[in-house]
Amino acid sequence: MTNPVLVEVLRGAIVESAHRGAVAVFDADGKPFLEIGDATRPVFPRSAVKAIQALPLVESGTADAYGFGDRELALACASHSGEPVHVELATAMLAKAGLDRTALECGAHWPSSHDATIALARAGGSPNALHNNCSGKHSGFLCTCVHSGIAHQGYVKAGHAFQEMVRDAMQSVTGVAHDADNSATDGCSIPTYAVPLKNLALGFARMATGRGFAPERAKAANRLLSACMAEPFLVAGTGKADVALMQAAPGRIFVKTGAEGVYCAAVPELGLGIALKCDDGAARAAEVMVASVLAKLLRADEALAAKLSEFARPPIESRIGAKVGLLRPTAARN
Amino acid sequence: MTNPVLVEVLRGAIVESAHRGAVAVFDADGKPFLEIGDATRPVFPRSAVKAIQALPLVESGTADAYGFGDRELALACASHSGEPVHVELATAMLAKAGLDRTALECGAHWPSSHDATIALARAGGSPNALHNNCSGKHSGFLCTCVHSGIAHQGYVKAGHAFQEMVRDAMQSVTGVAHDADNSATDGCSIPTYAVPLKNLALGFARMATGRGFAPERAKAANRLLSACMAEPFLVAGTGKADVALMQAAPGRIFVKTGAEGVYCAAVPELGLGIALKCDDGAARAAEVMVASVLAKLLRADEALAAKLSEFARPPIESRIGAKVGLLRPTAARN
Repeated sequence: MTNPVLVEVLRGAIVESAHRGAVAVFDADGKPFLEIGDATRPVFPRSAVKAIQALPLVESGTADAYGFGDRELALACASHSGEPVHVELATAMLAKAGLDRTALECGAHWPSSHDATIALARAGGSPNALHNNCSGKHSGFLCTCVHSGIAHQGYVKAGHAFQEMVRDAMQSVTGVAHDADNSATDGCSIPTYAVPLKNLALGFARMATGRGFAPERAKAANRLLSACMAEPFLVAGTGKADVALMQAAPGRIFVKTGAEGVYCAAVPELGLGIALKCDDGAARAAEVMVASVLAKLLRADEALAAKLSEFARPPIESRIGAKVGLLRPTAARN
Repeated sequence: MTNPVLVEVLRGAIVESAHRGAVAVFDADGKPFLEIGDATRPVFPRSAVKAIQALPLVESGTADAYGFGDRELALACASHSGEPVHVELATAMLAKAGLDRTALECGAHWPSSHDATIALARAGGSPNALHNNCSGKHSGFLCTCVHSGIAHQGYVKAGHAFQEMVRDAMQSVTGVAHDADNSATDGCSIPTYAVPLKNLALGFARMATGRGFAPERAKAANRLLSACMAEPFLVAGTGKADVALMQAAPGRIFVKTGAEGVYCAAVPELGLGIALKCDDGAARAAEVMVASVLAKLLRADEALAAKLSEFARPPIESRIGAKVGLLRPTAARN
């Protein structure tokens, strides 16, 4: 099936570009609440599932042993902007395991925050693996390896004992087999597995409610999502959509972006998980889509829904800062 | 109509994202050579028509009066990367008219070249209007105003005497009315008008052949396209697709990218103009589309077609530089 146009890009009064996509909203029992487009098509969730990938960090006892609180757990679930606070916290996490950035196997890139890039360049610096948006996740991985007595070298590779722990968690939470035939390699070198949107939505409904989980897992999942909602800046960074959305309703909305136009999210009070993908991989459209879906789910809270709806209509500005267009969600198709 | 998927993004062996679009290839008499998807839908060509917008610079006698050669004309048609050579040449063009960067009304942004941004920051600098990718075009605009005795203040605004010259050229070359009801504002503050792809393709076939033009216009068009093909680096910058494509067959291929997934191009030896748009506005897909179409048009030159086909299959790399996927054109639908 062809997914519907969910986001329009207007310049003046004319639609200049359009984004198609699919959305799945499910509860923890696997009951659909909302499906738009093809919610059964497998998609690579990329960084949107970092909270699930962080379950071993908590369940292995590593987080407790190293004294990790909301800040460290939020960073372990983050696609951060490489700002100084992110870099310093990842450094501190690694130090707890007796490691430094040379243990990271995620590769380096300039901070995704433009301002942080300029500041780093002005200070005469260059990026290292700590600036990689995934360095918090990888620091959590490395800490878990060390605490669990797993040799950390090659921890990013499919088949490594630690990646098997992550794969087990992903399979169990989403209810879908993660095998070689639905896998590829993520930008930070770990495996990523294509999972139907509906299973990702189900997985985040479980993460948000603990329903269907053993008590230990339910507690770990709650701790991770609560940490992200308590410290949204550490999950992303200055000016990022995830920060704005989680700050819009503290403790009530969990969102996490993934590369190529993916979002996973949850609304614990409604017991619902959300997964969506923009077909073409555009982050700008995925942000509009998730804000629009959240506004719909939370419409009973009119002030919050209005704030979310406004976020779903970001302006497009010229280089002198004049508003020349906007993005907007199309009429719901479901 | 729904445009077909023209570009797939693969991660491993799985299609992660997909881009739809439309392509028009026409000759200078308006005869279609290739149409994929809806070639009649109006699109904002954005920066892809800078060569047409530069016609007044040549036709007014400004280029000759100021001694502008291929380098200055290429920069007047450019979406440049804000590298030092671009900034210096725009400065020199303005100086011929007795102006400096304070006359530019395009606004400032950091160089679109990441390396140029880092170098500027390391040198303690900040961007100004000369770094705007459109500063060459705007310098040409300002020179034309001064040489023609038109007060340059407000030269970016619809209705300004100079913008009327640009609008006349656009209407005449594309054969489509440019009115308030198909206009909006471009990122650099000048008007942009939605034009059917087929008319843009026709326009660039005319630009490349001079067919249907008065002799003066034919000469000006040839001079502008020849300048771009002679100095492709000045039309774009380090690592840019337009440079690679024009350097692949010097003097035989003209290409110019525009924001939101647009390309205009021409193959003078075939008498054909090309216009295409990726529906969702993605530059990465538009680059694959234009390279793929050029490979098809120029398939008689097997070595060149192979080079263009390779360009249409760019790798996706992880942060450690491993190849983890690629973009590729889908089978042609026409």
